Amino acid sequence: MSIRPIIVIAGIGNGSGTRDKDMPESFALRVFTKAGYRVALIARGADKVKKAADDINQIGGEAAAFPVESYTYKSLTDAFGAIRAHKWSGSEKPEIRAALWNAGAGVWKPFLNVTEQDLQLVLDSNVNGAFAFANQVVQEFQKNSIDELGKRGTLIFTGATASIRGNVTTSAFAAGKFALRALSQSLNKEFGKQNIHAIIDGGILTDLSLSRRADEAAAKAWKEDANIRLDPESIAKSYLYLANQDRSAWTWELDLRPAHEKW
Amino acid sequence: MSIRPIIVIAGIGNGSGTRDKDMPESFALRVFTKAGYRVALIARGADKVKKAADDINQIGGEAAAFPVESYTYKSLTDAFGAIRAHKWSGSEKPEIRAALWNAGAGVWKPFLNVTEQDLQLVLDSNVNGAFAFANQVVQEFQKNSIDELGKRGTLIFTGATASIRGNVTTSAFAAGKFALRALSQSLNKEFGKQNIHAIIDGGILTDLSLSRRADEAAAKAWKEDANIRLDPESIAKSYLYLANQDRSAWTWELDLRPAHEKW
Amino acid sequence: MSIRPIIVIAGIGNGSGTRDKDMPESFALRVFTKAGYRVALIARGADKVKKAADDINQIGGEAAAFPVESYTYKSLTDAFGAIRAHKWSGSEKPEIRAALWNAGAGVWKPFLNVTEQDLQLVLDSNVNGAFAFANQVVQEFQKNSIDELGKRGTLIFTGATASIRGNVTTSAFAAGKFALRALSQSLNKEFGKQNIHAIIDGGILTDLSLSRRADEAAAKAWKEDANIRLDPESIAKSYLYLANQDRSAWTWELDLRPAHEKW
Amino acid sequence: MSIRPIIVIAGIGNGSGTRDKDMPESFALRVFTKAGYRVALIARGADKVKKAADDINQIGGEAAAFPVESYTYKSLTDAFGAIRAHKWSGSEKPEIRAALWNAGAGVWKPFLNVTEQDLQLVLDSNVNGAFAFANQVVQEFQKNSIDELGKRGTLIFTGATASIRGNVTTSAFAAGKFALRALSQSLNKEFGKQNIHAIIDGGILTDLSLSRRADEAAAKAWKEDANIRLDPESIAKSYLYLANQDRSAWTWELDLRPAHEKW
Repeated sequence: MSIRPIIVIAGIGNGSGTRDKDMPESFALRVFTKAGYRVALIARGADKVKKAADDINQIGGEAAAFPVESYTYKSLTDAFGAIRAHKWSGSEKPEIRAALWNAGAGVWKPFLNVTEQDLQLVLDSNVNGAFAFANQVVQEFQKNSIDELGKRGTLIFTGATASIRGNVTTSAFAAGKFALRALSQSLNKEFGKQNIHAIIDGGILTDLSLSRRADEAAAKAWKEDANIRLDPESIAKSYLYLANQDRSAWTWELDLRPAHEKW
Repeated sequence: MSIRPIIVIAGIGNGSGTRDKDMPESFALRVFTKAGYRVALIARGADKVKKAADDINQIGGEAAAFPVESYTYKSLTDAFGAIRAHKWSGSEKPEIRAALWNAGAGVWKPFLNVTEQDLQLVLDSNVNGAFAFANQVVQEFQKNSIDELGKRGTLIFTGATASIRGNVTTSAFAAGKFALRALSQSLNKEFGKQNIHAIIDGGILTDLSLSRRADEAAAKAWKEDANIRLDPESIAKSYLYLANQDRSAWTWELDLRPAHEKW
Repeated sequence: MSIRPIIVIAGIGNGSGTRDKDMPESFALRVFTKAGYRVALIARGADKVKKAADDINQIGGEAAAFPVESYTYKSLTDAFGAIRAHKWSGSEKPEIRAALWNAGAGVWKPFLNVTEQDLQLVLDSNVNGAFAFANQVVQEFQKNSIDELGKRGTLIFTGATASIRGNVTTSAFAAGKFALRALSQSLNKEFGKQNIHAIIDGGILTDLSLSRRADEAAAKAWKEDANIRLDPESIAKSYLYLANQDRSAWTWELDLRPAHEKW
Repeated sequence: MSIRPIIVIAGIGNGSGTRDKDMPESFALRVFTKAGYRVALIARGADKVKKAADDINQIGGEAAAFPVESYTYKSLTDAFGAIRAHKWSGSEKPEIRAALWNAGAGVWKPFLNVTEQDLQLVLDSNVNGAFAFANQVVQEFQKNSIDELGKRGTLIFTGATASIRGNVTTSAFAAGKFALRALSQSLNKEFGKQNIHAIIDGGILTDLSLSRRADEAAAKAWKEDANIRLDPESIAKSYLYLANQDRSAWTWELDLRPAHEKW
């Protein structure tokens, strides 16, 4: 890989204050930058996306911002068009070799309180958006040659416990995350033989989880105790491990949990 | 159960010719009728729904038709309003004690051919419709007393192999069916303690499967050989078995396969 | 089935006092007797086995006792020889059409307290015995013609939550029950195409569970509340439902839980 | 970790010719050596074990041989006694921080051909041996302080496809591997809160798989095509990745497959 490849990352934290740097996406930006990738950032909120890209450029990486209004087929098709048209550094055209879908919204409510709108929000961001994103990514990967790992590209979806288990307040969220897992498995079955690697990684968004913990003491303990919460940097490292799996030994699904979690 | 209870069934075959009577919904109508239930039929196509209800009434059962334009929150809320307002036979008001969601549309295509519209069709009928239906059903069940089986009601969703496995032509369909399975599991976890029983039953729609078999000889063998296809009557019997499980021994998921299927 | 078929049941409660009649095996004896089966009983403790068979004969069924010292290959081979040589009522020779393996011992201990002997006990009764039993049963089924359900025979293994989940005090027991599940799945894959139906049924032995509940009040509530414990009669009914599944719609695994169980 | 820790590895290739260096255990020795671990080797065949240790010592690592006659509770207890008594290099006493159980024998036969002895072989090496090994390992880990990764130690079991699926020729092997998976899950649930990390890694023994391929051309393609077989070095790298997972993000189970495998 003499020409540094591109990773496309969809979804990013809210860009302000301390929460941002705790998000796995932020770590993913830095971990893949350090591993030599250029980063194409797709997310909502033009200012936020631009700022995140600037941060990467200031630490010596190369990132470009591709803000979208929402994660529709049209906006994602347009964003990939802009990524292809973008003038990256160097004289040769870099390839998109990795992609991370990290944009799914969550809703945690008793079933009878879930509204039509709640469900639509979950499905749009976890299912429709992911399908549109994967459609673009797979088409890009198919243009690539097979690299030294035996791959044309790696597509990672961020999962959650709700990807494999429904529960009392997760009917809508689990519906979205189960569907995302179905997509990941279907892609792996269809495109594995084209050396395109799709994975769902069971990392739990730290910030979202945090916001659900009402009790202040519990929230503090949770924030400080790596035994009971997933560390965003550890999740980002797992993404890199997955991108680096060679074709002889890859996994479709990686389920990560804190050491003390009861599951 | 001196007053015969109601089962609400959503989704029904296309109502014409021989295909109709091969559909599990048709058998479900008859099997539950024979077991003493009154049937409230929700489906698209007013003529078809009315005809199916008439067929039941002619064999001595009691059925009423509640046609809808599509399976939206609004239309399903309206349909349940009509079911509640309906004048059933006898002097006492019967309760809704069972419900069957059987309305999910399928799409089988290579992933890159799946359009935004295909995905929307699958999500509307398998996820949005099922949420709206379940919302109404659970509210009805909560009004019921606990019966001799220890239940307030039984809600059955029709699953498929795609409920538990994604595959090369099922990215969209599996997304919908995985989501439905998440809903079923979440409902069971939330409402099991209220003695409301939600189940996903892995029956495969015979007609849909048949239509996917291009080779005529294979289609004929498949139609005639109970070793390799699910019999609709057998599926309908499994629905009744599930409705009759008492509270001490119920299952969340029943996976049915023909004897010779390689899985 | 003009000639009433035989079910072979291995394993039975301890034969004294009230506990006996609460065991699912006892209900299995009665439920299959009522459904027209003759019963061949294999278990340890000659007196107990004989008494259980006598009880069935007194209520108008037909049962014969085949006591064994332990569940070894040799003793089970001998027992099946005796079953074949047995003089059943009527002039024609009945076939073995169903079998139930219900003989697995359990150990519940923190891992470091599990001894070599504990583990051996679990493996002998749950794995070695089940393999030897299944070996005899499959050979018997292969001699049968296909019946009106499209089957040569049904072989049911009693599972437990430990069949699908290891936990803090179940390292040994789960090892045995996971292995039993592997056997059941392997048999179904190998012999399904010969119309031999193998199933693992997630019924939990009531007595064993009860003995593990130290708190008297909890034990009483548990015994009396069908919401929180599996009823042995309900388990026995599920066995019969499984034996009656036709070849177009059979299941490999049935997971039963009380309505209020958190799982 | 100023004092280099010990990894105990149980099971090793047959020690002669080219097969040896293709085995994942051999790679595990080298990969953990390179990562700074000392290696304590437990296996059958004194000469072979000594030679494997010598090989590591010649490339600048530190390994010691602890041959056993068989994987019984007694022999494994003795072997750990010898490991504790061993004079490792340096003035301070190194800790056992990792362990790999890689000793399970396999049997692939139609069910009716599986003998009592075949089953015993599988259970002894995959279940009894693994329990005895884990018993010693957990006791060692409990003496350790928590390291910078938040762990007292990492215990890895080698799994296989048969850990999660029974099939037509794997009734015995799957029984052993399912049981091993139950052990791994039980240990993780019981000792995760003590920061002891147990994992089952779905690497498939290359040599064993190879020996099962009758067709020469298929065997050749299989050996040379990383798309269709797991590379032993890639498996060994996954072991190291798992040992390096910190306490905030660890996995209980890692399922690895070649890119083109149909599963």
